[in-house]
Amino acid sequence: MSLNIDLIESAARRLAGHVRHTPLLSSPFIDDLVGRRVLVKPECLQHTGSFKFRGAWAAISALARGKRPEGIIAYSSGNHAQGVAAAAAAHDLPAVIVMPADAPLTKIENTRALGAEVVLYDRAVDDRDEIGARLAAERGLHLVKPFDDEDVISGQATVGLEIARQADELGIGRAAVLVPCGGGGLTAGIALALGARAPDMAVHPVEPEGFDDMARSMRSGRREANPRNTGSICDAVLTPSPGTLTFPIIKAVCGAGLVVTDAAAMEAMRTAFTRLKIIAEPGGAIALAAALTQHARIDAEAIVVVISGGNVDPSVFATALTRPAGSA
Amino acid sequence: MSLNIDLIESAARRLAGHVRHTPLLSSPFIDDLVGRRVLVKPECLQHTGSFKFRGAWAAISALARGKRPEGIIAYSSGNHAQGVAAAAAAHDLPAVIVMPADAPLTKIENTRALGAEVVLYDRAVDDRDEIGARLAAERGLHLVKPFDDEDVISGQATVGLEIARQADELGIGRAAVLVPCGGGGLTAGIALALGARAPDMAVHPVEPEGFDDMARSMRSGRREANPRNTGSICDAVLTPSPGTLTFPIIKAVCGAGLVVTDAAAMEAMRTAFTRLKIIAEPGGAIALAAALTQHARIDAEAIVVVISGGNVDPSVFATALTRPAGSA
Repeated sequence: MSLNIDLIESAARRLAGHVRHTPLLSSPFIDDLVGRRVLVKPECLQHTGSFKFRGAWAAISALARGKRPEGIIAYSSGNHAQGVAAAAAAHDLPAVIVMPADAPLTKIENTRALGAEVVLYDRAVDDRDEIGARLAAERGLHLVKPFDDEDVISGQATVGLEIARQADELGIGRAAVLVPCGGGGLTAGIALALGARAPDMAVHPVEPEGFDDMARSMRSGRREANPRNTGSICDAVLTPSPGTLTFPIIKAVCGAGLVVTDAAAMEAMRTAFTRLKIIAEPGGAIALAAALTQHARIDAEAIVVVISGGNVDPSVFATALTRPAGSA
Repeated sequence: MSLNIDLIESAARRLAGHVRHTPLLSSPFIDDLVGRRVLVKPECLQHTGSFKFRGAWAAISALARGKRPEGIIAYSSGNHAQGVAAAAAAHDLPAVIVMPADAPLTKIENTRALGAEVVLYDRAVDDRDEIGARLAAERGLHLVKPFDDEDVISGQATVGLEIARQADELGIGRAAVLVPCGGGGLTAGIALALGARAPDMAVHPVEPEGFDDMARSMRSGRREANPRNTGSICDAVLTPSPGTLTFPIIKAVCGAGLVVTDAAAMEAMRTAFTRLKIIAEPGGAIALAAALTQHARIDAEAIVVVISGGNVDPSVFATALTRPAGSA
């Protein structure tokens, strides 16, 4: 089966009863700040605190179609790690997760607590793909990639199916949909689902300043790399370059990429705290940050914002709450 | 119509489309801590950040049955204030809210921002009922009481209707349901709704230490008063004594009251942050605190916990996150 609405609906059926249908939240205060109706899809409320659980479940549940592996392996900065660990455990499969040593402590600890074996690597010098491939070969593990996998993308796409249905219930057919973008699995999945179910919605990937590989790639027409792979608080969305599977989809069907500063992400975390009562992690808050700071550039009657995750260390969150607005 | 399941279902019909159906959240980490399945009803995600919007909407929408007043008046430590302000504005009615001068700044500011006129009073010396009654008489305003009102209780009871339906979907029929309790409107409402729709659930009111008027009243059989009305961080649930309408209901149908410390409430706020990615205010977190600290006393296979609100000042929340666990 190829990556289309049928594969997405098939993933949705496997996810039913296991994945949380997150609500669409809103606040009159945010509507005022942005000058139009803003609907927030809080995937921080998803199992394991991020949308990654959807793709992990979709990929691991799809293994039932073929030969059962000895276990699952994944490489991840933290959210994919937790999603895979929880989904593997629910399928009675051991999980090995390759994580950067500088990932938030919360994410490393939770991944271990969910029953996975964690292998740490140095983000600056090691190649996580190589480490993952080697361990997979040695131990007979099935690799669940973070985004360049059709089953994973179809799982993330179920966020788009829910947005289409929920927006329709609210009478909203036309909207800009802003999505935090790392490798592009969530963005591509949502764009495919909305293309089929809510074609008047325009999806825009959002990235942190200095890590706007997707926005630049969309402009140049080929996969551009980031000059560095550390240096933003938005750890969840720092990937070297767009995915080989996700980029062609995003290039074909998405609107221009938006880019926000770390300071805007922190301010958006505070707004989500004050107005929506939810925890957004820095990388998970960047689409809300784009709505709050760049709404003048967005030509749409309504804006749907995805908060992709909420796995943030308490000390970082406390800083976002107590730092004066506007300071970097 | 008297206060029964028909009045509650009638309120639910008026609330439909205006009040958010909050999800039931859970975390394997919390299940481990409590030693059984724990389901969390996050009313912090309700419009205006607390369950109070339900009762306010139920009361104000019921006015359509009678003579339309010049406006609405309410007295409140903050959450009822915001719920009434928003519900009144949606019904095109001006609102006057009488609030204690020491209410959290967040709550006072939000109430004003929602379009209400705020009248401040001194919690230690003034009588808020008297102030409310006088302003109501002078200006022809309709008083929406915070809990001793059948329409308000029937609105809060819709939390119970949702719990009954959601727990049934999860295959849970027997459970202890822990509810933060101030005047008792939410507790009484949930208990009435569950009594009709999920009679194997036992509702327990939860109060902060030093303000356990409901627990003591249930033991003595008459409405006991608290020795003081300030001195806990749990501002949302500090009421002088049980309501005249709510107490007989709670005495008749609820299980024993539970009491938790302010320190336990702060620790529960941190757990809700870490494990559920939601913001609980101190008073809103006390039922989760009871589940976390007193589970050995609760004889039930599953526990449903209501988080009643999330309107907390950022500095207080940052303190809950950064203070070492166990310190008061």
